[in-house]
Amino acid sequence: MYYEPKIKEECGIFGIFGRKNASQLTYFGLHALQHRGQESAGIVVSEDGDFSIHKGMGLVSSVFGENNLRKLKGDRAIGHVRYSTTGSSLLSNAQPLLINSGKGMLALAHNGNLVNGYKIRRQLEKEGSIFHTTLDTEVIAHLIARSREKNIEDSILDCLKQIKGAFSLVLLTKDNLYGIRDPYGFRPLSLGKLGDGYVLASETCALDIVGAEYVRDIKPGEMVIINSQGVCSIQYAEGHSAFCIFEFIYFARPDSIIGGQNVHLARMEMGRALAREMSAEIDVVVPVPDSGISAAQGFAEEKGIPFQWGLIKNRYVGRTFISPEPEIRDIKVKLKLNPICEIIKGKRVLLIDDSIVRGTTSKRIIKMLKEKGAKEVHFGVSSPPVVYPCYYGLDTSNRRELIAARMSVEEICNYIGADSLTYLSQAGMLKALARTELGFCTACFDGNYPIGKGTGKYSLEEGRKCCGV
Amino acid sequence: MYYEPKIKEECGIFGIFGRKNASQLTYFGLHALQHRGQESAGIVVSEDGDFSIHKGMGLVSSVFGENNLRKLKGDRAIGHVRYSTTGSSLLSNAQPLLINSGKGMLALAHNGNLVNGYKIRRQLEKEGSIFHTTLDTEVIAHLIARSREKNIEDSILDCLKQIKGAFSLVLLTKDNLYGIRDPYGFRPLSLGKLGDGYVLASETCALDIVGAEYVRDIKPGEMVIINSQGVCSIQYAEGHSAFCIFEFIYFARPDSIIGGQNVHLARMEMGRALAREMSAEIDVVVPVPDSGISAAQGFAEEKGIPFQWGLIKNRYVGRTFISPEPEIRDIKVKLKLNPICEIIKGKRVLLIDDSIVRGTTSKRIIKMLKEKGAKEVHFGVSSPPVVYPCYYGLDTSNRRELIAARMSVEEICNYIGADSLTYLSQAGMLKALARTELGFCTACFDGNYPIGKGTGKYSLEEGRKCCGV
Amino acid sequence: MYYEPKIKEECGIFGIFGRKNASQLTYFGLHALQHRGQESAGIVVSEDGDFSIHKGMGLVSSVFGENNLRKLKGDRAIGHVRYSTTGSSLLSNAQPLLINSGKGMLALAHNGNLVNGYKIRRQLEKEGSIFHTTLDTEVIAHLIARSREKNIEDSILDCLKQIKGAFSLVLLTKDNLYGIRDPYGFRPLSLGKLGDGYVLASETCALDIVGAEYVRDIKPGEMVIINSQGVCSIQYAEGHSAFCIFEFIYFARPDSIIGGQNVHLARMEMGRALAREMSAEIDVVVPVPDSGISAAQGFAEEKGIPFQWGLIKNRYVGRTFISPEPEIRDIKVKLKLNPICEIIKGKRVLLIDDSIVRGTTSKRIIKMLKEKGAKEVHFGVSSPPVVYPCYYGLDTSNRRELIAARMSVEEICNYIGADSLTYLSQAGMLKALARTELGFCTACFDGNYPIGKGTGKYSLEEGRKCCGV
Amino acid sequence: MYYEPKIKEECGIFGIFGRKNASQLTYFGLHALQHRGQESAGIVVSEDGDFSIHKGMGLVSSVFGENNLRKLKGDRAIGHVRYSTTGSSLLSNAQPLLINSGKGMLALAHNGNLVNGYKIRRQLEKEGSIFHTTLDTEVIAHLIARSREKNIEDSILDCLKQIKGAFSLVLLTKDNLYGIRDPYGFRPLSLGKLGDGYVLASETCALDIVGAEYVRDIKPGEMVIINSQGVCSIQYAEGHSAFCIFEFIYFARPDSIIGGQNVHLARMEMGRALAREMSAEIDVVVPVPDSGISAAQGFAEEKGIPFQWGLIKNRYVGRTFISPEPEIRDIKVKLKLNPICEIIKGKRVLLIDDSIVRGTTSKRIIKMLKEKGAKEVHFGVSSPPVVYPCYYGLDTSNRRELIAARMSVEEICNYIGADSLTYLSQAGMLKALARTELGFCTACFDGNYPIGKGTGKYSLEEGRKCCGV
Repeated sequence: MYYEPKIKEECGIFGIFGRKNASQLTYFGLHALQHRGQESAGIVVSEDGDFSIHKGMGLVSSVFGENNLRKLKGDRAIGHVRYSTTGSSLLSNAQPLLINSGKGMLALAHNGNLVNGYKIRRQLEKEGSIFHTTLDTEVIAHLIARSREKNIEDSILDCLKQIKGAFSLVLLTKDNLYGIRDPYGFRPLSLGKLGDGYVLASETCALDIVGAEYVRDIKPGEMVIINSQGVCSIQYAEGHSAFCIFEFIYFARPDSIIGGQNVHLARMEMGRALAREMSAEIDVVVPVPDSGISAAQGFAEEKGIPFQWGLIKNRYVGRTFISPEPEIRDIKVKLKLNPICEIIKGKRVLLIDDSIVRGTTSKRIIKMLKEKGAKEVHFGVSSPPVVYPCYYGLDTSNRRELIAARMSVEEICNYIGADSLTYLSQAGMLKALARTELGFCTACFDGNYPIGKGTGKYSLEEGRKCCGV
Repeated sequence: MYYEPKIKEECGIFGIFGRKNASQLTYFGLHALQHRGQESAGIVVSEDGDFSIHKGMGLVSSVFGENNLRKLKGDRAIGHVRYSTTGSSLLSNAQPLLINSGKGMLALAHNGNLVNGYKIRRQLEKEGSIFHTTLDTEVIAHLIARSREKNIEDSILDCLKQIKGAFSLVLLTKDNLYGIRDPYGFRPLSLGKLGDGYVLASETCALDIVGAEYVRDIKPGEMVIINSQGVCSIQYAEGHSAFCIFEFIYFARPDSIIGGQNVHLARMEMGRALAREMSAEIDVVVPVPDSGISAAQGFAEEKGIPFQWGLIKNRYVGRTFISPEPEIRDIKVKLKLNPICEIIKGKRVLLIDDSIVRGTTSKRIIKMLKEKGAKEVHFGVSSPPVVYPCYYGLDTSNRRELIAARMSVEEICNYIGADSLTYLSQAGMLKALARTELGFCTACFDGNYPIGKGTGKYSLEEGRKCCGV
Repeated sequence: MYYEPKIKEECGIFGIFGRKNASQLTYFGLHALQHRGQESAGIVVSEDGDFSIHKGMGLVSSVFGENNLRKLKGDRAIGHVRYSTTGSSLLSNAQPLLINSGKGMLALAHNGNLVNGYKIRRQLEKEGSIFHTTLDTEVIAHLIARSREKNIEDSILDCLKQIKGAFSLVLLTKDNLYGIRDPYGFRPLSLGKLGDGYVLASETCALDIVGAEYVRDIKPGEMVIINSQGVCSIQYAEGHSAFCIFEFIYFARPDSIIGGQNVHLARMEMGRALAREMSAEIDVVVPVPDSGISAAQGFAEEKGIPFQWGLIKNRYVGRTFISPEPEIRDIKVKLKLNPICEIIKGKRVLLIDDSIVRGTTSKRIIKMLKEKGAKEVHFGVSSPPVVYPCYYGLDTSNRRELIAARMSVEEICNYIGADSLTYLSQAGMLKALARTELGFCTACFDGNYPIGKGTGKYSLEEGRKCCGV
Repeated sequence: MYYEPKIKEECGIFGIFGRKNASQLTYFGLHALQHRGQESAGIVVSEDGDFSIHKGMGLVSSVFGENNLRKLKGDRAIGHVRYSTTGSSLLSNAQPLLINSGKGMLALAHNGNLVNGYKIRRQLEKEGSIFHTTLDTEVIAHLIARSREKNIEDSILDCLKQIKGAFSLVLLTKDNLYGIRDPYGFRPLSLGKLGDGYVLASETCALDIVGAEYVRDIKPGEMVIINSQGVCSIQYAEGHSAFCIFEFIYFARPDSIIGGQNVHLARMEMGRALAREMSAEIDVVVPVPDSGISAAQGFAEEKGIPFQWGLIKNRYVGRTFISPEPEIRDIKVKLKLNPICEIIKGKRVLLIDDSIVRGTTSKRIIKMLKEKGAKEVHFGVSSPPVVYPCYYGLDTSNRRELIAARMSVEEICNYIGADSLTYLSQAGMLKALARTELGFCTACFDGNYPIGKGTGKYSLEEGRKCCGV
């Protein structure tokens, strides 16, 4: 089973307090969260008030080795894996941030996107602040440092009053580890217990890997403070659940539990819902690996039609050089996927995937299946069409790239060359997720933005002004 | 679906003739054969009698980049990916070999193991030959160069009379590409057609990736000669099919076709056969991903018991540094696999895998499932116990590592902590593969070695005498 | 002739305005300044208000390649090479700094050390500023951004009123390139003209390499503003020349001109002065290559005693692994230097060097010469004993490492095993440099600190609090 | 003082027997011989009949690190540094060669060039031998392995009867270390003693670095056998000294002793000889650093004209990227050399160098000096014009590149823009070297080839046929 996201995006955060090997455990935790960001990785560890940091571009396993892990000594740490949502792909934009302030050393790691980040930044610059990165995280750091509150906790609370948007945060100070979710709980954050220590992680799979016991999710509008006395909680704002539904559709790992619901089983449920909404006559259900597997299984069970591995995925996909020769067309999809003829030949195939972004890969897969002898290729998507951009931390904001924002379902069907195309309805999807205790943000499907669009993204023009390491 | 082999082993070979971008296509072909060897990769290309070579340690995508592919110009090429079966892990042992001889330049790539390689080498050394590598391939090169036959083709045939063992070979001379299988056809080799050109590959998935049409398998005891006139064939020895059954059990990619049979479907058939031989009362069938998936699906279908993803595999497994702390026990298996509690809790689970080698991973998985609440964990293996070492190119020769060579089935069951353990019978396995047109080598199960054990492996002592780049 | 400094230290800065290939020329300029810092290198370039940056750890030639130079487009740039004097050896401490502020983008590169940097930083932190680095340069950036002056030029001048210490600065804004020296002119900075453009550089050898014509040195207390209108100058503070005399002793390249005086000829003059102050009976004058060559030549000429290459330096000195075996003693000095027996055998040798820091190398050289047959080995140093630490940017601050701070000249002579040891007197040194138009800082010899000691260095304790990339 | 060769060429060899840290000492020895080859480096070490090898492309310090040195265990070793004279720049052509033969393991390292190597290779290929490299060393290995003599020593002697050319060799077998020079002694090889052990090295500077005492040079036509019994010698052929005079002109390190003569002092002597043959009126003698320093010093002393550092060399010369802009002309020489104006302005300058190869650098230096104000620039070369190619291991074989092979002295003078140009006469050079006990090969000056031209070099066409790794 699988969870390599098709659209690379988002971030993963991790924090730990009160465990001797804090950096080693954070390293494992980031490894389990690798699917949430492959661009950069970083760890800040602290011991007796001394902070050490290591970060770099690339996967967790290439950024960290025995040598730099050995140097990261301490019993408390935070970590971050990243794919950029704001700011460019630069080392200077890697997280965590570690800064000196009048209130002491402060390390921050952030998953999400502020809708008023740009506005606050401009105001701070006017007042004489300087910025080294294009991260919202640096805005948060400034607000904490400049707060008139004297102690750091009150300063953080002061900052939380000012920022608006999607944010799950872990912060490390000399004495405390903080875990914070925004009042709408757009992004996930879970609390676990490991012996005498505590763990915070974007997903429960990162609790599992370090052997921590899942305690509960941090609530929307909640801040937990972890130190040698234990955990205490402050509800700093009224909470309204508007959890990002795409975490269930494809971001989260299938083995994670969110809102009390296992993700893989939720996806199977969405497959079942799709089956109930759809009536095409088909011989075989084939998942697009890995993203369509759970839904395809649910679909097949619900309909009683055989689930078959009609497409095989090559596990060895590194950076592959492809010369621009005309005769090497379609190689891109072939480097990843190969059909099994015996399974699809002469059959009416239903391909299942969790979503369609630009449609180019879907188009190539369908062409390949038809060339190999499929009689018909139908396409089922276990979520509704993505029509609206996300302003809360998902990298689907460029509306021109979203095929469903430009074409009707019928047009998409023609474009990808399918014999039919069925999306799961929004109502069906929400019903499939009813077992969770969560409210959802469905803005990307219906345009209902819980907290407005803001100016959360730097314009391209802005971005161009600062590039390099 | 998957094909990362648990036991790293074997080699993959590829050859192409008559296509402008020979090195680029070979690169794609090796990419598709990457599962057959991750230790080193190499390509020899030829144009107008000029030969160019590039090889290196590591994956195909890291050994080859735009720069060195651009330099490999020509319309004919051979390539090789390798995990050592003989010789040590050295760059000097990477293939193909490219040598100067009195009969012209000669490039060779070899998959297999000679049982009389060591004996011939000693004889050649006595007669004044010198060896740079510990490869059987170099023995073959010497025999060709020293043959009293004048042209290279007769020299190759002369060599084939002298060597004994498992070998699939591709050879490139100034004018011809040769594809050869030993008289027992232990190792696979397929022929494909791509436009006016021809392709040879260890598996058909490598024909698929370059868009070549599958023509047929090279026959045991056959040599094909490919040049600008087309293909011709010489049956240089009487053929007896003794195909390595482990290619079907786990080496080959599920999308490959061998002996007319798709590998994934063959594995499902083995799962069905296991289901017919087994009667344990279970609630859910869970594959060990990725190796047990096909068999688990066949088993579940045959028995009518639900197939469920009880174990999730992390796709990001690089070299991970693990500090030797006692509290980080069991992390090795957790870095790769995580259970879904909802699926296994309180259930009688049947784990399915394709084989058990040392038993340590199986033991850890079962422990993890029980800790997460599985009521019972039974273990089904879709092949018989591996009791005897392989002398024909498989890296299972160290008998002390094979758990089934040391313990009875009952003892293994106790060791891995399963509630029951069932292996597929040899008869059941052969019946499941009856649809292929092949005879099989089953020596690793029953000790019936078709061509003896030979002295095919260098002793450890030998190996120590030459190490380094 | 040579200028690899024995004590690695300091920084080199470079700026250019109005030349199409600004980054390529800055790269050459930094290459010529490489002796001033081998730890990190960086370039910021600007075009139409867009700023690009690239920096990294290591030599200029390894940090910059064709690819990243090509991306650095613009007609104005600043660059920096660094060996840390404050802050630890981290990428985040590499310069130039490029920051966003309310007054626009600002890039800064700094050579020197502020004596009130730590105090200002603490004050800024109290007021809510956050710091990403441990660099004085970031203090300067904050002061400019927070100034109540509205335009950036007035803000810079406002900042210059507040900082105290040794600083030569180049700054790049959207429209202007600034070159600034502190009121005492501790560190060098020269102005050159290249066609219609202008160049700023720590040393004139960097003007030479890009083909710029030397115009003049920036004056103590002067700021020059370079833009499309040309150059204008502001004497922002009264200037008093207190130039770092160690630039002449060994920092600067022998081909540079400072204060109207070529450095190599100044060093020869110091050798002559030493000759006049010394009366040992010797047969041959041997320089310690490369640092003692100029002085040895001056000494030999003045005394009429033959100058001879008694020690040969190996040019290939990379990082050499030395196993800790007892029989491999003295290998460290042998990897660098080897005597010519014919020159020193039976002779009374006078070794000449520009300074003695810890004395260990001098001791090993003398031992080696005696073993090879030198009758007597005398030692002449072309500068006075370094007794006091530097607070203005030189890395000799750890007093325990300075042998002359712990021992008398006689004790040093015994320690290094010389038959006699003579240092140049401070008066003799100043007389030898009389031809320059400069006043000098001689604090390291006599403890007369022109602007006090300040708290310019972070304590070790401070340094420990932030380490990593 | 210096020894970075202008024309990169040749090889350096090293051998040691009977010292515990054989690989570490070989590493130091190769470091001292680095000037003889920067392309690749390798070490073979042996212990109790087990051989280990490590080799790679690049400098000794980058090929070897703590890890691979630690693995190279044994009390006897040979090493090699290389710049290609035959064969292409490939890892497979790095030395030493380590081969398996019927007479046991054999490691070889070779400096020189066989004139009948190509012919023997063709003959061996005809007889069925295969070649992996394009090295003469492999020809030697084949001849030893194929000899009908039974023991390895007689086989080596048998081989020595057949090969013709320039060769200094170190060979390592299970029991013995061999040191061999060809009958004309073209290439150097010295013997040293280190405690109970023995050392062989191309130059005595490599004996010095390991602390070995110089014993004597291996004689032309001599083979020494070193083992646990000590050293014994076989004069396998009548010796005639025809030592490569270019070792004295610029190959060898100035601190080495060859034929009883220190190289630096010999070069000074050549400078003096040039002074006696030349009468130009000049004000100052300026060496081209580093190659012209010794001769310039001798010249200046003989003539009583001041020696001055008019050109300063930048020690940091890595691979520098130079964009192909027209305005960056002459940057290549400026990256290496910068004049001191005060020394050359208005002066009649005599530049001294050890040779002129293509003349382009000389031309650029003279232009630079004139631009900086030199009144006249004369050029003195401390050796005769190189007119004929070398067939004995020097990389000057491409006659079109040798300016003196195409132009008269007057034409060269015009081409490089000098006011006069004087070469040392051949008679003057030989007289300057009269103190050595050696006869010299002067073929590159006068075309008198002691053993003919042979077919020692592969034609370009040949070379093209094998490239890669």
